[in-house]
Amino acid sequence: MINKLAEKIKQTGAPVVVGLDPMLSFVPEQVQQKAFSEFGETLGGAAEAIWQFNKEIVDHVADLIPAVKPQIAMYEQFGVAGLAAYEKTVSYCQSKGLLVIGDIKRGDIGSTSSAYAVGHLGRVQVGSRTYTPFHEDFATINPYMGLDSVKPFMDVCREEKKGLFVLVKTSNPSSGDFQDRMVEGRPLYELVGEKVAQWGSELMGDDYSYVGAVVGATYPEMGRTLRQIMPRSFILVPGYGAQGGRGKDLVDFFNEDGLGAIVNSSRGIIAAYRQEAYASFGAEHFGEASRQAVIDMIKDISGALEAAKA
Amino acid sequence: MINKLAEKIKQTGAPVVVGLDPMLSFVPEQVQQKAFSEFGETLGGAAEAIWQFNKEIVDHVADLIPAVKPQIAMYEQFGVAGLAAYEKTVSYCQSKGLLVIGDIKRGDIGSTSSAYAVGHLGRVQVGSRTYTPFHEDFATINPYMGLDSVKPFMDVCREEKKGLFVLVKTSNPSSGDFQDRMVEGRPLYELVGEKVAQWGSELMGDDYSYVGAVVGATYPEMGRTLRQIMPRSFILVPGYGAQGGRGKDLVDFFNEDGLGAIVNSSRGIIAAYRQEAYASFGAEHFGEASRQAVIDMIKDISGALEAAKA
Repeated sequence: MINKLAEKIKQTGAPVVVGLDPMLSFVPEQVQQKAFSEFGETLGGAAEAIWQFNKEIVDHVADLIPAVKPQIAMYEQFGVAGLAAYEKTVSYCQSKGLLVIGDIKRGDIGSTSSAYAVGHLGRVQVGSRTYTPFHEDFATINPYMGLDSVKPFMDVCREEKKGLFVLVKTSNPSSGDFQDRMVEGRPLYELVGEKVAQWGSELMGDDYSYVGAVVGATYPEMGRTLRQIMPRSFILVPGYGAQGGRGKDLVDFFNEDGLGAIVNSSRGIIAAYRQEAYASFGAEHFGEASRQAVIDMIKDISGALEAAKA
Repeated sequence: MINKLAEKIKQTGAPVVVGLDPMLSFVPEQVQQKAFSEFGETLGGAAEAIWQFNKEIVDHVADLIPAVKPQIAMYEQFGVAGLAAYEKTVSYCQSKGLLVIGDIKRGDIGSTSSAYAVGHLGRVQVGSRTYTPFHEDFATINPYMGLDSVKPFMDVCREEKKGLFVLVKTSNPSSGDFQDRMVEGRPLYELVGEKVAQWGSELMGDDYSYVGAVVGATYPEMGRTLRQIMPRSFILVPGYGAQGGRGKDLVDFFNEDGLGAIVNSSRGIIAAYRQEAYASFGAEHFGEASRQAVIDMIKDISGALEAAKA
């Protein structure tokens, strides 16, 4: 999958991923009302509303980008019905040729991580048959519990040729509470980055490893350091747009081949119609607003990469 | 909930929680066959098998213990059907008077942690109505992303009087990869423990805080230190039995009031019928084997606590 991701980034010229994190408040009134009229104001109604919202956005952006990143929490909050909408979203995006990064941030003791790994990236055995329950192409994982919590995911990725993004330095304001603490002369996130590089060296694709990292757009200097520590790991960069990151801040997350990073924007794209810049599309054309926001984001990032080269 | 947990531990004399982590391989053949004959060898069939397995065990142990801890990964691996069995298990346990600790180990940036918090411990809004999708009483959470990833859970706990167990020092062999690293003269897990104590001081029940910690039974010396760092936090102690912990190792996880810790055993209880000690029950009486294993576990732990007092 990491080879496919690199190839699709080259094809589209867009090192960009759209975060499908549909809070119900982002879903235009008419989409909510239609879903509620069919399913009532129920968890199933909410799930239908976010699914229809996703579908419209995906239909408008699928040709522009290599991948999407649904945040499972936004579905899980609506219980079982929400998780069914998550799976449906994964399937639909894949049918449109998009790679899907499941933003699940799981991680647990070995046998438990194995269960997450087969459920999300692999195959689970039921009697004589096997199933692929959530079948994302990549997943984000949390490394706090150490190597044996990560290894089951690596084993499944080796078998299924799928990929991981390990949390290294997250985009949120409190990420420094533990990640920035000095450990033997360097911050913890650097130590985690070193581990990612080491784990990743065992699982190489053509140019990049199956094991990538999450580093927030909001910390560009740390991105520069981590780029050097993990030269063959793709960096998934959240925090663009709504959280404050901009194209020019992100140049150092990339390698000189123009690859090695993929920048996520969630509400900046999916709720674009609510921003002043895209308000003229109107709530009824929210998909077109999202498309324009993706075009502008690609221009911002590729422009910054071009400028850096020059 | 933390007051209720302390009270139920006193009532039952059992600072013990049964981990409902049903790998399909633990489920006796006859239970699997019955489920598969009804639903086929499908994800729904697997979900039915683990649900029937859970129900039989819960029916045999509910009067002995204060709480259960379903590990959501074991359900999530079977997709949407598995998560429906998770919710059904939570409901059933609560109907039997048990408190439910959802072992979910979630944690993300603020708005995303909010979604997890409402979905698991709180209420989610859909139009004019609210729902409680997974309605556990407690949840485990991962602190790697710092305070703003924890705070949304604390906010929901304050409102709903529910509780948290924050990962501090986990039971797995690699937990030291990052948790044991020295930060400003002390290991990271102590720093996390200090934060738990600090966060917990803002959310106090009668004697204990709504904010507890996870500390593995496999690291009793660290348990002793952490008990002192977090005097008013309940410690959830996994790793008893199958992972190697024993009653005599666990004394220092408790306070002098005999409270402050609750020890989990998962496969040692739910797959007891497969151990030599309980093999005489036979696979058809797996619930009775689990009951005996719980009785023996309570005896081991309360015996060790008595001996320590003497």
